[in-house]
Amino acid sequence: MNNYQNALALHEKWRGKLEVTLKAPIESMEDLSLAYSPGVAGPCIEISQEEELIYNYTMKGNTVAVISNGTALLGLGNIGPAASLPVMEGKSALFKRFANIDSIPLCLSTSNVEDFIQTVKNVSTSFGGINLEDIAAPDCFIIEERLKQELDIPVFHDDQHGTAIVVAAALLNASKLVQKEIEHMKIVINGAGAAGVAIAKLLHSFKAKNIIVCDTVGAIYKERTERMNSVKVKLAQFTNNTSEKGILSDVIQHADVFIGVSVAGALTTEMIATMKEQPIVFAMANPVPEMMPEEAKAAGVRIIGTGRSDYPNQINNILAFPGIFRGALDVRASRINEDMKQAAAIAIAALVGEEELSEDYVVPNPFDSRVVESVSQAVAQAALASGVAKERKQAILS
Amino acid sequence: MNNYQNALALHEKWRGKLEVTLKAPIESMEDLSLAYSPGVAGPCIEISQEEELIYNYTMKGNTVAVISNGTALLGLGNIGPAASLPVMEGKSALFKRFANIDSIPLCLSTSNVEDFIQTVKNVSTSFGGINLEDIAAPDCFIIEERLKQELDIPVFHDDQHGTAIVVAAALLNASKLVQKEIEHMKIVINGAGAAGVAIAKLLHSFKAKNIIVCDTVGAIYKERTERMNSVKVKLAQFTNNTSEKGILSDVIQHADVFIGVSVAGALTTEMIATMKEQPIVFAMANPVPEMMPEEAKAAGVRIIGTGRSDYPNQINNILAFPGIFRGALDVRASRINEDMKQAAAIAIAALVGEEELSEDYVVPNPFDSRVVESVSQAVAQAALASGVAKERKQAILS
Repeated sequence: MNNYQNALALHEKWRGKLEVTLKAPIESMEDLSLAYSPGVAGPCIEISQEEELIYNYTMKGNTVAVISNGTALLGLGNIGPAASLPVMEGKSALFKRFANIDSIPLCLSTSNVEDFIQTVKNVSTSFGGINLEDIAAPDCFIIEERLKQELDIPVFHDDQHGTAIVVAAALLNASKLVQKEIEHMKIVINGAGAAGVAIAKLLHSFKAKNIIVCDTVGAIYKERTERMNSVKVKLAQFTNNTSEKGILSDVIQHADVFIGVSVAGALTTEMIATMKEQPIVFAMANPVPEMMPEEAKAAGVRIIGTGRSDYPNQINNILAFPGIFRGALDVRASRINEDMKQAAAIAIAALVGEEELSEDYVVPNPFDSRVVESVSQAVAQAALASGVAKERKQAILS
Repeated sequence: MNNYQNALALHEKWRGKLEVTLKAPIESMEDLSLAYSPGVAGPCIEISQEEELIYNYTMKGNTVAVISNGTALLGLGNIGPAASLPVMEGKSALFKRFANIDSIPLCLSTSNVEDFIQTVKNVSTSFGGINLEDIAAPDCFIIEERLKQELDIPVFHDDQHGTAIVVAAALLNASKLVQKEIEHMKIVINGAGAAGVAIAKLLHSFKAKNIIVCDTVGAIYKERTERMNSVKVKLAQFTNNTSEKGILSDVIQHADVFIGVSVAGALTTEMIATMKEQPIVFAMANPVPEMMPEEAKAAGVRIIGTGRSDYPNQINNILAFPGIFRGALDVRASRINEDMKQAAAIAIAALVGEEELSEDYVVPNPFDSRVVESVSQAVAQAALASGVAKERKQAILS
């Protein structure tokens, strides 16, 4: 059986990758009177008098909702909420496996932005954090921004920030190998969707001064009028300062770094030949990258990373989101801010020691158990330092 | 420590009575490629082509949302969504403990009926059933009715129907002891909220012809104009055929049965003295019933049931909702109809054998393991017979 058929057979056997189990025993009338009526009135009354006590008496503080409407699922596009449930269950499973976070998949049957926002706000009481997933751009930007403003729990669109954080970590380490500083690199990002925009923003916060983002029309620049939107207008304010114009093959000339969040085959050997010496390529189209690693190496790329587990340098969100939410929940952060994202990227990068850093090892392995611990501590620390956390770290990691 | 303090201490220790755990192993890159990307695309694609396959490949078919807005919590009234979370977690825990159903508490921060309905519809894709809980009347009636019409999964307001089913079961057995038929009994229900209305409806479907429902104003009858609403108008169409008027102490005269879903102390010994011989009293106000069992017995009541676990004849919803949802999910019923509720009541009553039936034992114990099995089979059978089920019973009970 191939991967597709094998996964189908396993999903049919599992009938759900998650189970809800009891932490409170219910084996006697006495148990019942404590976990349920009449004893349960106790925590209810206390919370009604001081709402913050919900964190002491319920699962809220360790529970994250994984929420999608299935409008941009993996490489499959808009296949709707029902078809997105296997992915959201999987994401929830990863939260548990890697960060001991109780996570619940919610697939919303609406593609209306206001309706989506209102629904998430209405269910948010049950959750300590919201992980948005696989929502089409530009709706994903509006939804995340509004929810961040209107809720007092962390809201995080992983397709944007999780990807950006791991790319930043990989670039931090790759920059050491090529002995160039991010500040002076020319970085071309191909794709102006959720991931592309967030990567540009995060690399900018890491002082990158020369970023050019391309969409299907070509380079985005301030004066461009074709197929712009409010997100691209903002992007143009801090990228492409010299207003380079043209398609990818034009603007990739003299680039130090190519970051692909686009489609298979978007990058060619001819383009690589025009890049500066020691090219860095993160080709993250799934499942087939913008250029396969063998071809990239043959074309002279020094460091190639992809989203795939069967090649070195897997740029995988699993390195980021479990530790980020673990850290945010541990200190009851009200949001996940830029400081926390930067801290996560630096922590991931730091797990690759100087002596082990190489062209084929710029980010740690997802199953490296140090990752979540290290990222969560860095994120919690950054939350406390930047004033968005409510309490000192109390690790719930088991 | 008393029950209140003990429950507080335990809730603080648990920090949530539920945990989300993995059914799919994620211990290697191979596992990851099957439970998550790229293998997870398989079930996604299959479901996008045939939506019903969501039941084969995900947790939907065994997952029930427990949904409340905290507007009518236990005996505490409208204390809001946050303060209701301990109860909803407890309810979800009971679903797991008694019926192996994976259940998730959702506390909605809205008391607007349309907003509530829209939110539940928007999240319903993830769930195989919806259990509504502790929502104030009359909103609870509108919400349940609309969701039943607009969703293709079972929607069940337990405060209404769970209570009604267990009351009906208790009355079926009590009627044997007093050798009267429900058809000929005068039944007075004190309380026209969620439970009172549903009890009247279900007993009517069990052929009760002489039911009178009282609210805070007094008996409800067709011609009444004071404090009526659409629910009470409908109630008046099949109850109180002779239009008896007056307060509880008036209409309870010559009653065979008193059913209290009201407040502590609503029933007096003077009222009982005016009832027919062998009075039956189900006094379900929580935590203090309309009349305490000792007082009822002393006043000549033959059969007294309450909501309390420290007295015989506990009228406890736990006897009903786990088996009802288990049965409905097992045959993938699209709704929980009157036939299924009746079947549940009959199944619960039948678990008390003729030789063990007594004044102090008209309903089984909640921890009697036969209950969920018996109720779920009866409900599944009724669903199949009444044409609302999609497949033959496949027990998931472990």
